[in-house]
Amino acid sequence: MIKTILLTVEYDGSNFCGWQKQPGQRSVQGELEQALSIVCAQPIHINGTSRTDAGVHAYGQRASFTADLGIPIEKIALAVNPVLASAAAGKGSKYLRVTGDIHIREAVEMPLDFHARFNAVGKKYVYKIKNSKEADVFSRNYHYQVPKPLDLAEMEKAAVHMVGTHDFKCFQAAGGKELETTVRTIHSIKLREEKEDPQIIIEVKGDGFLYNMVRIITGTLVEVGLGKLSPERIPFIISGKNRQMAGHTAPPQGLYLAEVYYRKEKLDED
Amino acid sequence: MIKTILLTVEYDGSNFCGWQKQPGQRSVQGELEQALSIVCAQPIHINGTSRTDAGVHAYGQRASFTADLGIPIEKIALAVNPVLASAAAGKGSKYLRVTGDIHIREAVEMPLDFHARFNAVGKKYVYKIKNSKEADVFSRNYHYQVPKPLDLAEMEKAAVHMVGTHDFKCFQAAGGKELETTVRTIHSIKLREEKEDPQIIIEVKGDGFLYNMVRIITGTLVEVGLGKLSPERIPFIISGKNRQMAGHTAPPQGLYLAEVYYRKEKLDED
Repeated sequence: MIKTILLTVEYDGSNFCGWQKQPGQRSVQGELEQALSIVCAQPIHINGTSRTDAGVHAYGQRASFTADLGIPIEKIALAVNPVLASAAAGKGSKYLRVTGDIHIREAVEMPLDFHARFNAVGKKYVYKIKNSKEADVFSRNYHYQVPKPLDLAEMEKAAVHMVGTHDFKCFQAAGGKELETTVRTIHSIKLREEKEDPQIIIEVKGDGFLYNMVRIITGTLVEVGLGKLSPERIPFIISGKNRQMAGHTAPPQGLYLAEVYYRKEKLDED
Repeated sequence: MIKTILLTVEYDGSNFCGWQKQPGQRSVQGELEQALSIVCAQPIHINGTSRTDAGVHAYGQRASFTADLGIPIEKIALAVNPVLASAAAGKGSKYLRVTGDIHIREAVEMPLDFHARFNAVGKKYVYKIKNSKEADVFSRNYHYQVPKPLDLAEMEKAAVHMVGTHDFKCFQAAGGKELETTVRTIHSIKLREEKEDPQIIIEVKGDGFLYNMVRIITGTLVEVGLGKLSPERIPFIISGKNRQMAGHTAPPQGLYLAEVYYRKEKLDED
């Protein structure tokens, strides 16, 4: 029977050219489609919610596909994850790997015309900053290391000015697709510090994001935290609609697509 | 002035062919020699203590070299680490990376004839097992995932039989260099469980290790923990001197070279 399935996918973006398929490169979409096609015994094309860049991670990317499924929906993750793990381990690998760098957390049935991107009403991104001089070779791909101390209170003041509905042209990188409008709504920006493992975690929730928007927001907040930019400058930066006025683009390895919302209530919660 | 320097080096082994230089491949030794040669403005050859395999990590690898140094010793790490970070980020990388996948923790002067390998009297390895079915794409390169529950008490009983001076031919993989003797002394094997993030950590201290010895010890302990092998079998496995009698070789990504000892007292401590 023909069904539309919605997947929740976690991945470590370190060894991918990004979400989107690109010839001759290893992409998250490409690996997932290959594994799903094997398990479903037919060519599968998936639609992801967000085209994450190379090095960007996901706790909760979503992707939908429609197929005439021969296996029960609750078996999809169980069947596909070992194929993903074995593909990630590489050809001729001697060791069984239980977990690959892509993992399907959940597969659920949706109405036939459901589309993971078009039906999404919002997303949450998490950005991790390691605010420390201390080198840690094991976590370098999972955060942005800022060696100089950041002033969290100043960053919070700046973030307040970003929340709301604005034309966010200043936070849009060149190279994205042509858009009708650059007006977006940021529902919330939360900053918190983790003391043990000195990290600053930024959570940004919004109805949609421009190309590299969360990374430019983060770069701008980092410049505020370093004292290079005053929080009071933010409204002028936004109204200036000029990318050059905003801060730098924070690197990809600190960014995680955390959640995708399909119901407005969830987006507005907390 | 000509000096001999001893380095303490941490690395994430995931993206290396191993410690040893190999033509056309990325090795820890090769990357370190290249960065040191740039900073010291002369070709540098280093001697590492242990030739760790592809995927094996180090908190405290040691390497020595002799050179006519133009820079103060305390500046070596400060000067070489950014070169290592930039090499790890790759050519044309847009983002400054503070930490690479190799990091020099310390550089100290030693007597001119000092050699990091020949002068070592022992080493400590750590092996990390994630004893859980739960997938975590972000930590898959840093432990051996065993989904079925392991009996730690049984593993501890088995480890007791391994400590001491024995002919450890049973724990030697094929492919290592020809050795005069396969007799080694294991000073201690400690096992501990970390509850929050369900891990079993194995620490093995000894005067020297055969090829893949810690990984075969771990594979054997895992088979005991799974109930496939009784702890009482260990003395027979050792006296049998036959690799086939021991357990499987645990995969490289769980193994960390933790410490190298140059004084017998340190090796005997605790």
